[in-house]
Amino acid sequence: MENKELSKTVQELQERLDKLEAKNSRLTMVLFSGEFDKVMAAFIIANGAMAMGKEVTMFVTFWGLDAIKKPTMGTAGKNILEKMVTFMRPKGPANLPTSKMNFGGIGPKLFKYMVGKKNVESLASLIEMGQEFGLRIVACQMSMDVMGIKKEDLIDGVEFGGVALMLGESYASNTTLFI
Amino acid sequence: MENKELSKTVQELQERLDKLEAKNSRLTMVLFSGEFDKVMAAFIIANGAMAMGKEVTMFVTFWGLDAIKKPTMGTAGKNILEKMVTFMRPKGPANLPTSKMNFGGIGPKLFKYMVGKKNVESLASLIEMGQEFGLRIVACQMSMDVMGIKKEDLIDGVEFGGVALMLGESYASNTTLFI
Amino acid sequence: MENKELSKTVQELQERLDKLEAKNSRLTMVLFSGEFDKVMAAFIIANGAMAMGKEVTMFVTFWGLDAIKKPTMGTAGKNILEKMVTFMRPKGPANLPTSKMNFGGIGPKLFKYMVGKKNVESLASLIEMGQEFGLRIVACQMSMDVMGIKKEDLIDGVEFGGVALMLGESYASNTTLFI
Repeated sequence: MENKELSKTVQELQERLDKLEAKNSRLTMVLFSGEFDKVMAAFIIANGAMAMGKEVTMFVTFWGLDAIKKPTMGTAGKNILEKMVTFMRPKGPANLPTSKMNFGGIGPKLFKYMVGKKNVESLASLIEMGQEFGLRIVACQMSMDVMGIKKEDLIDGVEFGGVALMLGESYASNTTLFI
Repeated sequence: MENKELSKTVQELQERLDKLEAKNSRLTMVLFSGEFDKVMAAFIIANGAMAMGKEVTMFVTFWGLDAIKKPTMGTAGKNILEKMVTFMRPKGPANLPTSKMNFGGIGPKLFKYMVGKKNVESLASLIEMGQEFGLRIVACQMSMDVMGIKKEDLIDGVEFGGVALMLGESYASNTTLFI
Repeated sequence: MENKELSKTVQELQERLDKLEAKNSRLTMVLFSGEFDKVMAAFIIANGAMAMGKEVTMFVTFWGLDAIKKPTMGTAGKNILEKMVTFMRPKGPANLPTSKMNFGGIGPKLFKYMVGKKNVESLASLIEMGQEFGLRIVACQMSMDVMGIKKEDLIDGVEFGGVALMLGESYASNTTLFI
């Protein structure tokens, strides 16, 4: 190759490398689970990653949506099945069950107590803090449709999108966690 | 470096970059779970990725195998424990429980109804569609051995392999999801 | 660019590529779950990866800690809640429940029998083997604090760290699995 041509090729390689290295600054998470302990783990990781300077996108789908519901969400404009699902599913971080040792709802209280004693932030604060630090929360449109969850049922600042958005984020990230 | 030597080095770099960038066109999934909702999520992601032009390998292991069983699978040639496991585990997408709100099997029916009403494909169609579009499904040989599942117990078009194959795929992919 | 400058740039590109390619030799796992079957899957993958020459770090958190407890762990120096949690959680690989078909503890025995019959290593051996082959097990300090688990409660050879260590490993790896 000529020197000039070589220079151009090298520049192209630089740009391609820049793009690959940019993945090191991003984290993608899929929050599928809605249990207190798994949601807690997800937001601890998300906040930890942001503290390390990463941009984090959390794609929230299926049961994970329970964690970002407003406790005040209602059933207006929903059909009978959607009303039933709304009624039966937990609403917001304060109402999530734990995946183990739930004991009819005592488990999460116990955990919150133990977590508080060790000065670990509560789940609600972790979510709020996350959003303040720029955590991008994207609710899965398809899951919302299937379960009859409206946009106004979810906490403020949430975006809405589908699997293509999630995969796009994942391919722009070094790490993607399915929780 | 001499210009000639430099040209050669740059070409090598190009090839190495090509290889790293090739990961952007592949997705690896490990389907460990056998619940209707998780399997549904897995195949929605797999089909979504293929629609975006990705090559997808789904390595199916443990309970995930329930999702790719033929509903007609039998117990011939199995020992007593294998027969018991065959009898007790769900066979195929129509028989999977949900991870939450299963209500003794009503949950999946309810979900299927809600999914159908929103024009989301059924799980059986998602699997079929996936295979048509080139989804590579690999059943974990070791799990099959342990649980006494024969090759003919699984749907057609499935390959068989071990953890080395799965890891090989993962290292050729940008994203690997464990579901 | 001058030939000399070009040489320098190419060398820099080589170093950046080396760094990206180094991810191909590392695997990061987050073991969040404590069920026999999921822990088994995690250690089969870890050992498989090491057999392929990968360096593996397993970050063990929440219920996953059950799998690396000494069966002899006690309650000395723990408060009443920590004692309760210590008492109620399984201690070590021989005492983990399965996520399905547990049948009050018969499930794991059944599995161990079936696993043994197919000459698959037992979970305890997989963990031991893993450590012998250089598996780096890091217990999550925050989870230990919250659940009142002391360093001496866990098997020997375990390191201790937080989410930053886990994410650091993940960004040095091509693949990160959350199990």
